Parts: sequence; C-alpha cells; structure tokens
Amino acid sequence: MEKIYLDHASGKQVNNRVLEYAKPYLNEKIGNPSSLYSVGLEAKRAVEKAREKVAALINADEKDKVIFTSGATESNNLAIKGTVLRNQSKGNKIAASVIEHISVVNPMKELTKNGFVMNNIDVDENGLIDLNKISEIVNEKTVLTSVMYANNEIGTIEPIKEVSRIVHENGNYLHVDATAAAGFIPIDVQEDGIDLLTLSSNDIYGPQGVGALYVKAGVKLLPVLPGGGQEFGIRSGTENLFGIVGMGEAARIAKEEMEAESPRLQKIRDALIEGILQVDESYLTGHPEIRLPHHASFRFSRIEGESILLSMDTIYGIQIATGSACSSKTLEASRVLLSIGLKHEEAHGSMVITLGRANNMEQVPRIIEAVKGTIERLRMLSPL
Amino acid sequence: MEKIYLDHASGKQVNNRVLEYAKPYLNEKIGNPSSLYSVGLEAKRAVEKAREKVAALINADEKDKVIFTSGATESNNLAIKGTVLRNQSKGNKIAASVIEHISVVNPMKELTKNGFVMNNIDVDENGLIDLNKISEIVNEKTVLTSVMYANNEIGTIEPIKEVSRIVHENGNYLHVDATAAAGFIPIDVQEDGIDLLTLSSNDIYGPQGVGALYVKAGVKLLPVLPGGGQEFGIRSGTENLFGIVGMGEAARIAKEEMEAESPRLQKIRDALIEGILQVDESYLTGHPEIRLPHHASFRFSRIEGESILLSMDTIYGIQIATGSACSSKTLEASRVLLSIGLKHEEAHGSMVITLGRANNMEQVPRIIEAVKGTIERLRMLSPL
Repeated sequence: MEKIYLDHASGKQVNNRVLEYAKPYLNEKIGNPSSLYSVGLEAKRAVEKAREKVAALINADEKDKVIFTSGATESNNLAIKGTVLRNQSKGNKIAASVIEHISVVNPMKELTKNGFVMNNIDVDENGLIDLNKISEIVNEKTVLTSVMYANNEIGTIEPIKEVSRIVHENGNYLHVDATAAAGFIPIDVQEDGIDLLTLSSNDIYGPQGVGALYVKAGVKLLPVLPGGGQEFGIRSGTENLFGIVGMGEAARIAKEEMEAESPRLQKIRDALIEGILQVDESYLTGHPEIRLPHHASFRFSRIEGESILLSMDTIYGIQIATGSACSSKTLEASRVLLSIGLKHEEAHGSMVITLGRANNMEQVPRIIEAVKGTIERLRMLSPL
Repeated sequence: MEKIYLDHASGKQVNNRVLEYAKPYLNEKIGNPSSLYSVGLEAKRAVEKAREKVAALINADEKDKVIFTSGATESNNLAIKGTVLRNQSKGNKIAASVIEHISVVNPMKELTKNGFVMNNIDVDENGLIDLNKISEIVNEKTVLTSVMYANNEIGTIEPIKEVSRIVHENGNYLHVDATAAAGFIPIDVQEDGIDLLTLSSNDIYGPQGVGALYVKAGVKLLPVLPGGGQEFGIRSGTENLFGIVGMGEAARIAKEEMEAESPRLQKIRDALIEGILQVDESYLTGHPEIRLPHHASFRFSRIEGESILLSMDTIYGIQIATGSACSSKTLEASRVLLSIGLKHEEAHGSMVITLGRANNMEQVPRIIEAVKGTIERLRMLSPL
C-alpha cells in the first residue's frame, strides 16, 4: 500500500531541483566564504546570491538584511532575545499572540526571568488575533510584539498589515514568524510593515537545519551565538553552504511557482474538508476561509488525536499530525486549541493535515475513507 | 593546473561515503523524529544511531549525552553560556586559555557583561598551556574552564588529561573545544576527564551546519535556543536529519580510519615542514612535535600572510590559510600568534596548512616550490 504523507508541516522532502542545484556545495565547491582566495570568494558569492533570492521571496528592500541561521527556532530566538536585549532602553515589555509557536513563547519566557513582562494577545474562536487587544496591551514600553503570519496548527492567517499598523502606533518592533506561511501565500515585508521575519528552509522544500531572519534596515540586535562574526556580525559560525544555497534556490522556486501550486493544493484541501466534515460530530478548526491553502485541521468529539494518528498510520498508511509535532511528545492538550476556546476534552480529538507537492486529487477518496473508518472504529472502541 | 587544497580547517569536502549514507534523509526518509507515526519513529531511530556513533568516536559513557547542534560555534556557546548560567550558584568566575577559538572567547565576553569575571590562562612559546597558571587562576568559584584539545592556527595539542586533573582539583567544569582535533587524534572523554566537549561535523568530513556537544552525566545546563524541547530539552528545533545522520556516519568512519589516515597525513606534513623550512628566515609555529598530524604552520619574516595566500592561490593554484579563516576579514595580527610571544610584525607573515583526504605525497614538491617562489618574489617586492 502506497503511503500518503499529509504532515508537510513536520518535515518536507527537499525539492529535487534544489538538491541538484545545491549538491556541488557538499563535495566540490567547499570554500569558506571568509577565506580570501578564489574558492572562498566563490563561496561568498553563492551565499550572497542565496540571500538575494530569499530577500526576493518576501520583497525585502536591498537596504534590509537577511541573516542565515540554523532554522526557525534559532531565527525566533534571535529575533526576540537579540532585539529585546539590544533595545532594553526602550522598555521592559514584550507581547505575543497566545497561539505563537513554542519557539517564540519560550525565548519570551526566558526574558521574563530577566525582568521583562510578557503580555499575551488573545485570539477569537477562529484563531484571528484581537486587534483591539493589541492597542490595549502594546505601548511605548513594548520593545517587541510577536504575531505569526499564519498558525501551524489551525491554519488561520493573521491580518499582519493591521497588526503592524497598531503595533507601530503604540509600540516598537513587530516580529512575524512566517514558518508556516512562507512559500504558500505571498509575503511582502514592506507592504505588511514587518521589522523582523522568521523563515524556515525546509518549510519551503529546502534542506533542513537552515533558516533565515529578515531584519529591516535600522533594527539593531545582539547576536545570540557570538563568535567569528559571520552574517554581518549577527550570526557566527562557518556558513552552511549546501543549506544556504539550497534555501536560496528553494525560495526562488517558491516565489515562481506559488501562484500555480497554492491553488492546486487549495482544491485538494477543499475536497478533503468537504468529505471529512461529513463524519458525525466533526468540526473544522481555525478560520473557514482565511486559512493557509494547504492546511486543513479538524476535531472529532469523543476521540483522542493520538489514536487517530496511529490508526491512520498503521491501518491506512497515511501520516497525519495531531497538534504540533513539537509538542506531540507531551500528551497535554494543544495550547492553540485551548486558546480558541475549546474545552480540554474537545482539544484532544484533533487532526491536522498539511498538504504538499507529493499530494494530488487522486488521493482524496482514499484519505476520506480512511478518516471515516478511523473515526467510526475508534468511537466504537471508546468508553465515552 | 590542478588545484591543491591545503585549507581543510576552513572547510572539507563531505566524504562521498557519508553522502551516500545520509542522502535518503534529504528526500526520502523525511519523518519528524517528534512524530509518533512510523516514518517519525524511523527518523528518531536514525538520530539515536548517529548519536551512538558520535559517542563512540570520543568513548562517551552511555549515561552521558551527545547533543546535536548547528556546529562548533553553537556547541561552544551552549557549553559556556548554558553551563555557567545554570550553575551560577557555584561562583562568578570563568577561565580560558589565551589561544581559544573566538567562538569560545566571545560567549565568555558576553558573560562578563552579566557580572562574571573572565581569567586568561597563558601558553608558552610553543602554545602549550601553563599548567601552573591553571592552579593559580582556577578556584572553587570558577564555574567553567575552557581549554581546546588542539589549536587550529598552530596545531599544538594541549595536555588535556593534566588540565582536567588540575581543573577538577580546584574548580568545577572543564569544557574542551575539539573542533580541530577530533577525527585526527584519538579522544577519550572518560580517560581525559572532560565534562563538555565541542565537535564539528564538517571537520570530520560530515555535512556543514551540524555539530555536537558532549555533556557528561550529571552536568546540568540551560538551553541557549529554547523552543520545542528537542535534544533532551537542551537544543530545540526540528532535527536536521541529513546533517545528523551524516555526522554520525562521518564519526564512524573517522574512528575506523584514523589509525591509518593520520600517519599518512603526518608523513606528508613532515615532508612539507622539512622542505619549507629550507626557505630563509622561515619558522615553524606551534609545537614541533606535540602537534596535530595534519597541521603545519609557519611564519616568514618581512612578508604579509595575505600576500602569501594570494600569491599561492593566483600563481600556483594552491589554497592555504593565514591565521584563522574566522578572523581573516579583520586585518589584525593573529591573537594566537601574539599569545605565543611573537611581535606584531612577526605574527603577520603567517601561513597555515591543514592537510586532508584530498592530499598526497605527490603534491609535496609542487607545494614546496610554490612556497619558495612565493616567498622569494614577495621579499623582492617588499619595502622592508
């Protein structure tokens, strides 16, 4: 039985064109960009070219900086701790939406141990951020506000342009984690008014272990990993050439093909939502319309998400997620689902589908049958 | 003209056997180790297998931890900041040899801004650490002492076992940066008495953008990049599968082949040293015997290292380093060479050769001729 992978938010196949393009940087073009001889300069040019491609994906101005990191977790840490610690003179407040990724929440919690006060911004039952609450909470002492572009668990896309307007009227910098959104919906840091933006390479089909942080010109931040002073002195460590070149090419392809690929995925998603919602007591989580084109998330009454996951995998050969892979080890109910107002018992029966290049319309009937069969069987077994 | 690459400390070709082995983790086996379904569990097993191979290279006990990071810079940051901030109750002192890598020095400097006092431990004219000085400097208030296994610029191997004995008599934890040494000389963390050890993947012919930190059982440290809690809660971020699996295989190969490869490189190195020291006013830097088998470093009077580098590259097609690639952008004299007692003008004429798998004895005459030609020509042009 051919497997169907529906958990692209947890990990993606590197695009074969990306691999072809970046492969020489593993075992042929191995210069150190800091070295002054020919192969070093060639490596340096390759890094700069990748930087331009990533900048183009998000329409960064040429005065802005794109800093390569080891991934979204590091970009979030750098954006938050780097900016806040460098700009302490502005105030001691930080703010974030209640549905931010744990790699945004935890660096902020670390800052609270150093005297910073963290304010949470609520979301509504669809996961949309409360814009009035931002005005209430954010003030001139708020050094940094973090609101994600779109949520990884419920797919809701936040109104970043409005968020930016309010944040900049009242506070200082806006950080946006675009890990789930980039490559699937257009992002324009200038139009949106973003100061710091987190990107993950693998989430746009580039190699794992690399990411980027966009930093608007004029925003100052401290390094989190000081050392040799690479990446404008902000992120030290010998450059991961294969990773960086690969991420650049992945960004170029994403920019070029998003316009065709995202509507293709959206059609598959819509067919899945239509079919799966025919199951009794099944509900879509997140916003019904303002959501990522490749993202469908559900909850089912009287069932555990983990049982859904295991049944789908072992009986039907289909990989789905329940909540975020990052918190799936702890068996706690998803913080995000509780934030949109679900009760604990409701939040436990969650299933998240994130589509990708490997998926097609022909898989839809098999997926729907598998979900129906899984839910029926589990409910029969359930003591509830 | 075929290029001869003699700067393996700045970047290495990933071993083709490592690539073959790890390749499936780029575009076939792409599960997230935190996911509970089949492909996630397979990924988890692959990470654990890699961890065992890295542990075997340094003879870690099975109770100890190997934590995968994004490279040596992050490992050094984590070892230093993570351990010191977690163990502040022990004291406010930290210590390091004066020839540590900049990614050890700079995290320590960051700590001094938080009230820690940093003590420097001198080295002699060969770069060997002053053991008496350690006893004088390190006391029960010294939370962490950092001494590298071998130096990247002058090749000197430090007496880590004696260092460990003295550090543990007087202070608390010993961190050892083994970036330059691992894979070329045997390292035994138990025999050597090491609490924290930094490893770089690419320096043992694994992929770039990945490294590891060995942490002895019982040593507690705070995460530097908090988030989803991967890597025992100490290093968050979705695992870089290709990088980690590749580093594991590179460690396995290094352990297996070091015994044959290092003497092979040492013979080439000795032939190079013999030939190059025939140049007038040329000197070996670092210890004449107690040095890395693949490492030869020199200085030449009345010449700039950068001119040597450019001449060797453009006229002879040979890539060498002058000082560390990490500081080669600043035109300052090498901190390491000044530390072994050289004057500024002496420290500027430095040339570092680090051999690797791509080198062989047949290249030796061409290299020696190139060095002789370069030095002669530059001295003729020199105003000094």
